[in-house]
Amino acid sequence: SVTKKVCLLPGDGIGPEIVAEAVKVLKALQLPLEFETALLGGAAVDATGEPYPEATQTLAREADAVLLGAVGGPKWDTLPRPQRPERGLLAIRKDLNLFANLRPAILYDELAAASTLKPEVVAGLDILIVRELTGDIYFGEPRGIEMRNGERVGFNTMIYSEAEIRRIGRIAFEAARKRRKHLCSVDKMNVLETTQLWRDVMNELAPEYPDVTLTHMLVDNAAMQLVRAPKQFDVIVTGNMFGDILSDEAAMLTGSIGMLPSASLNETGKGLYEPCHGSAPDIAGQGVANPLATILSAAMMLRYSFGWEDPARAIERAVQKVLAQGLRTRDIAAPGDTVVGTAAMGDAVVAAL
Amino acid sequence: SVTKKVCLLPGDGIGPEIVAEAVKVLKALQLPLEFETALLGGAAVDATGEPYPEATQTLAREADAVLLGAVGGPKWDTLPRPQRPERGLLAIRKDLNLFANLRPAILYDELAAASTLKPEVVAGLDILIVRELTGDIYFGEPRGIEMRNGERVGFNTMIYSEAEIRRIGRIAFEAARKRRKHLCSVDKMNVLETTQLWRDVMNELAPEYPDVTLTHMLVDNAAMQLVRAPKQFDVIVTGNMFGDILSDEAAMLTGSIGMLPSASLNETGKGLYEPCHGSAPDIAGQGVANPLATILSAAMMLRYSFGWEDPARAIERAVQKVLAQGLRTRDIAAPGDTVVGTAAMGDAVVAAL
Ligand SMILES: CC(C)[C@H](C(=O)O)[C@@H](O)C(=O)O
Ligand SMILES: CC(C)[C@H](C(=O)O)[C@@H](O)C(=O)O
Repeated sequence: SVTKKVCLLPGDGIGPEIVAEAVKVLKALQLPLEFETALLGGAAVDATGEPYPEATQTLAREADAVLLGAVGGPKWDTLPRPQRPERGLLAIRKDLNLFANLRPAILYDELAAASTLKPEVVAGLDILIVRELTGDIYFGEPRGIEMRNGERVGFNTMIYSEAEIRRIGRIAFEAARKRRKHLCSVDKMNVLETTQLWRDVMNELAPEYPDVTLTHMLVDNAAMQLVRAPKQFDVIVTGNMFGDILSDEAAMLTGSIGMLPSASLNETGKGLYEPCHGSAPDIAGQGVANPLATILSAAMMLRYSFGWEDPARAIERAVQKVLAQGLRTRDIAAPGDTVVGTAAMGDAVVAAL
Repeated sequence: SVTKKVCLLPGDGIGPEIVAEAVKVLKALQLPLEFETALLGGAAVDATGEPYPEATQTLAREADAVLLGAVGGPKWDTLPRPQRPERGLLAIRKDLNLFANLRPAILYDELAAASTLKPEVVAGLDILIVRELTGDIYFGEPRGIEMRNGERVGFNTMIYSEAEIRRIGRIAFEAARKRRKHLCSVDKMNVLETTQLWRDVMNELAPEYPDVTLTHMLVDNAAMQLVRAPKQFDVIVTGNMFGDILSDEAAMLTGSIGMLPSASLNETGKGLYEPCHGSAPDIAGQGVANPLATILSAAMMLRYSFGWEDPARAIERAVQKVLAQGLRTRDIAAPGDTVVGTAAMGDAVVAAL
């Protein structure tokens, strides 16, 4: 049907506040969207004892896309592992087969001062990190903590099959093709066989994308190069574990992670969309959280899951307009800026549409 | 005996040039040192077919400390894995049981401009990263690339025993005790059981070091915080894999990795000392490489392996004096600086002793 079902998962901390603003913006666009809300993370644990309860599974599977706030908080950190909020996040990624995580790291001109890096190093920064999200050491078996020879031993398994590498590789090559046509694959092939296979498979794909330049970089060097000269990168593709680290490092180069959206997609384009930042329990309920990353995540949803490029652009342009007007939530405010709250920022985006 | 045996492993690329300068400085101090030279890495592969040949093993085991230049280069990158230069480095670390890697990230006032970060963010930066070096996914078994169900699968094993974690933990607590008394342990306990054990063992050690404040940080957050506010850190302790990534990121915050030494120690204080930078094959043999990281590594050797604090300090002070005099190798030169070559820089340090 033409009507798309969006499953809203507000989650914990500031999650409900920022998702409300994204919904406000989506509704203002008068698109054929239907919303249903379910529990994930700590909120779900509190209500049902499980971070990804059955009711949520059903709704998420039936929906055309999922819009998530954030999960987690100190309140749940001491629970047994299966009941921790992050388990809910890992479970939904795996359950919906969301293997392709797209994390743009973009520096908005208006917010350039927020970066801890020198302006000439980061001005105009526009990197896309493509992170594999359903494999690697995150999900590999065997894993656990065991007694061996009278002492505890902890172990996990890094593992990738060539099919898993190939499908994320294709997503990354396609993304690079639509951008500046440079793809840097990050591995640790000099130490890890898993990532030697990663590099081999990327090289095997390259001839299918003659218009894209493929390079390789070791993960330690990539962590350095992101600090030294981040603008050398266009698209970066890497595994789940390295992607977790590098995408957060890249996000922080902008100094404003309150602005950065993300998309996690499966083979059919179904996706989960969420801001890169966390649940910020310290400011939850105060109406001061920045809703823009969630609003921009909603734009990614329109583009990637529904193919609605025009309203996606409209949202992105509205966000830029609001920044140009000088409106700032606390996290992105510089001395002298006009600080607005969460709802006022959402209203401003609606007004700018 | 009072005479200490130093095994020199110049290695590849710029290795021989920079080790020569460190030896020059050590000789100028007229300490009871004996030097023997052996092959490691690509140079060893070329001569013997192996990156860590028997003759080198014998010398390295007999020596009181090892001073290494750097290994690796594109020339050897296509060799079978067991013959790659890095294998030599991994093998000597394991063979000598060098489980404790100390990597200071220090920003010299004179070189503050070299950082890509804003001066106020990095001025006075002084972090020590303590990286476990003989365990983790670097050495875990099983590992390899295999056919499974008709496709290639790559796999590696992350593994730590509590004894391994405890011994590196103690090194880190002791180091923090001699510094600003703050230790941050980095893990990914919300996903990896191995690092849940890591966190547990660190917490168990804490009561033995009541004067040190222990905190924990997830690795993705640590990668962000190093960019956002690096001066919040004093000592960071982490596993081999995360340490590889974070220590390089931290090093690059200074903008001058040509200045950063490292030490890799075993239980008895025997150590391998090497600069943090690589073998820079592109400038090898040109006499332009920066020898200061190797010279400072030699100072660490005097301090950690021989307990000779005074000559260690003398070297460090001489390096600082040379910087204050405005002498710079090409890599750390700003426009307008006086650029000197490798040997001239070594001579200048000797003169400043
Ligand atoms: C919460 C955690 C399990 C998660 C991850 O490591 O993938 C988060 O850091 C992220 O990057 O989305
Ligand atoms: C060369 C490589 C095997 C090595 C490592 O990963 O340990 C290097 O990156 C280092 O950090 O010393």
